[in-house]
Amino acid sequence: MSIESVTHIDNVKLSENGSAVVIIDQSLLPNETVYLTLDKAEDLWEAIYSLRVRGAPAIGIFAAYAIYVLSARTKAESFEEFYAEFSKNRDYLDSSRPTAVNLHTMLWRMDAAVRENREKKIPEIIAALKDEALKIHREDMDMCRAISEYGLELVKDGFGILTHCNAGPLATSRYGTGLGTIFLGKERGMEFHAWVDETRPLLQGARLTSYELQKAGVDCTLICDNMASIVMKEGKINACFVGCDRVAANGDTANKIGTSGVAILAKHYGIPFYVFCPSSTIDFDCKTGADIKIEERNPDEIKTKFFEKPVALPEVKCYNPAFDVTDADLITAIVTEKGICRAPYTESLAALFGDRK
Amino acid sequence: MSIESVTHIDNVKLSENGSAVVIIDQSLLPNETVYLTLDKAEDLWEAIYSLRVRGAPAIGIFAAYAIYVLSARTKAESFEEFYAEFSKNRDYLDSSRPTAVNLHTMLWRMDAAVRENREKKIPEIIAALKDEALKIHREDMDMCRAISEYGLELVKDGFGILTHCNAGPLATSRYGTGLGTIFLGKERGMEFHAWVDETRPLLQGARLTSYELQKAGVDCTLICDNMASIVMKEGKINACFVGCDRVAANGDTANKIGTSGVAILAKHYGIPFYVFCPSSTIDFDCKTGADIKIEERNPDEIKTKFFEKPVALPEVKCYNPAFDVTDADLITAIVTEKGICRAPYTESLAALFGDRK
Repeated sequence: MSIESVTHIDNVKLSENGSAVVIIDQSLLPNETVYLTLDKAEDLWEAIYSLRVRGAPAIGIFAAYAIYVLSARTKAESFEEFYAEFSKNRDYLDSSRPTAVNLHTMLWRMDAAVRENREKKIPEIIAALKDEALKIHREDMDMCRAISEYGLELVKDGFGILTHCNAGPLATSRYGTGLGTIFLGKERGMEFHAWVDETRPLLQGARLTSYELQKAGVDCTLICDNMASIVMKEGKINACFVGCDRVAANGDTANKIGTSGVAILAKHYGIPFYVFCPSSTIDFDCKTGADIKIEERNPDEIKTKFFEKPVALPEVKCYNPAFDVTDADLITAIVTEKGICRAPYTESLAALFGDRK
Repeated sequence: MSIESVTHIDNVKLSENGSAVVIIDQSLLPNETVYLTLDKAEDLWEAIYSLRVRGAPAIGIFAAYAIYVLSARTKAESFEEFYAEFSKNRDYLDSSRPTAVNLHTMLWRMDAAVRENREKKIPEIIAALKDEALKIHREDMDMCRAISEYGLELVKDGFGILTHCNAGPLATSRYGTGLGTIFLGKERGMEFHAWVDETRPLLQGARLTSYELQKAGVDCTLICDNMASIVMKEGKINACFVGCDRVAANGDTANKIGTSGVAILAKHYGIPFYVFCPSSTIDFDCKTGADIKIEERNPDEIKTKFFEKPVALPEVKCYNPAFDVTDADLITAIVTEKGICRAPYTESLAALFGDRK
């Protein structure tokens, strides 16, 4: 793992002896930095479900390590037996969250590694799985770096950049996607001012993004989500940078709830809105955003989680969609590791990644 | 106080013996319903500053009672002495919050009552102050009722109505402004579905609006502020209803932070956006929103208040404007107690209230 950056955060890795996945428990940040060593299927599933590990790319990496760890301790004596176990674990992990495509994609990349090696002995298949998981991780670091380089083409020194949710090192590896440009620019002596949406209900902006930026010495200011309009109106924002959880073939983008609102505000105020998108997040099987399943989460995340006391009566109903879809026509550009795509995205995404369709 | 409604909330009143102001401490809702009996200048000031009493009209009523209570215990023997004391209390109370115009307006209405009676004996001036405060309160009830009647012209049975912050009985008297139409419609057998923005950082939507609606039996759903876009996109919202803290002569409207964002989203999705505005909130001295001073509050409201643990590192900067200005061209109509104003507001507001200019 050779890429170092100003962020110095190892959010997901394989344990030294390779028998467990080690993560920072993101649900406890920024007050506590606790590392978890996970090796049971239920604990690995729960870590994704409860957002101890989160961010589409990080979930993909984690899932790859997780299925390797679960596979490595098999007692199966035939490929059929091994693959039945593998498939059960794959589907179980895949059920932890529905919206981010990386989880599904990376589990199926691991599945392909099993099938490609089906003629080999089980220990060799397991070794191939380890190699594949490490490769997925390494590719993510390279991807973050490449995306960040392209992002630098879109900014000038001194830019005010508004970001929503967390698309930094904790969500990916090393640089991050949406935040990578800010960190890479910082390393090269550029100074940005980051405006961080707190990102209700789970406060990933407050708890994770402002933490990463502050630790890396980037000038940043935390705001409530509903303050994005006033800071844009006051001329503080030159560009909006967000990550994504699934991008449809036409450029419609699912990302953390509230992202579409930021994009609409940016359009109103004439501010460019950029999606930072590793190609692993593009889902050509979704023609448009209407094909993307939106996860709805527990109302307690709105009413009680994080709070000292409940903030609404117990009988009050809540609606808690975890993501929304930003229509392609609100997106100024989609920045990928292979280059910057602009509308019409059906063509520009296909031109760079059409071989995957 | 004869108007009764489904809401049954007495948020501000004079104590039985007239020597104190009694309020529900809104900062403790919805978990505790605590009434405070306040008679010291510092406590009265603090109740406004700390949002124990809040909502532009309610602050105006409270301030009128407060200055009466402080004046009634004077030991002054001359008008000059009395008026010097009165002026000191008036300016002190007026310094508690800067954005809502009602605080200032009602204190100066009380001031006018003093000056008009300057030839009378001090106990008679004090009696005039009590009458004026009760009149201000009564007028607010009538205003809320009249605004709510006009609001009913804008809705149909079954409407989904999105609201931001709290413009209900707790913010006013009885019906409220932004919520009055919902309560009055409910009394007449109409069923609306209210979508309630939680309204960070102080959660007036979660703590107060959903409380009022639930207590009155109105079907309502609480959402985080950043979910307004998705519920609009999903077709759940037929209209947005908000109150206001100060309306400029051209219709630009200061209201709780985030209101301008809701208005921009509504425009994007083609949903009407209505401001419910008692004429006491119109400030003809402000030509446009640029003349309205926006209160900036303590960063701790974003990072620590309400939370079990801080949600960001102590060294992270926050920006915490309490209000924003919604440009007049985003407002479908301004609903007042004398009728519904539409653009151009400079003309329509002047036509109804120009005699005040």
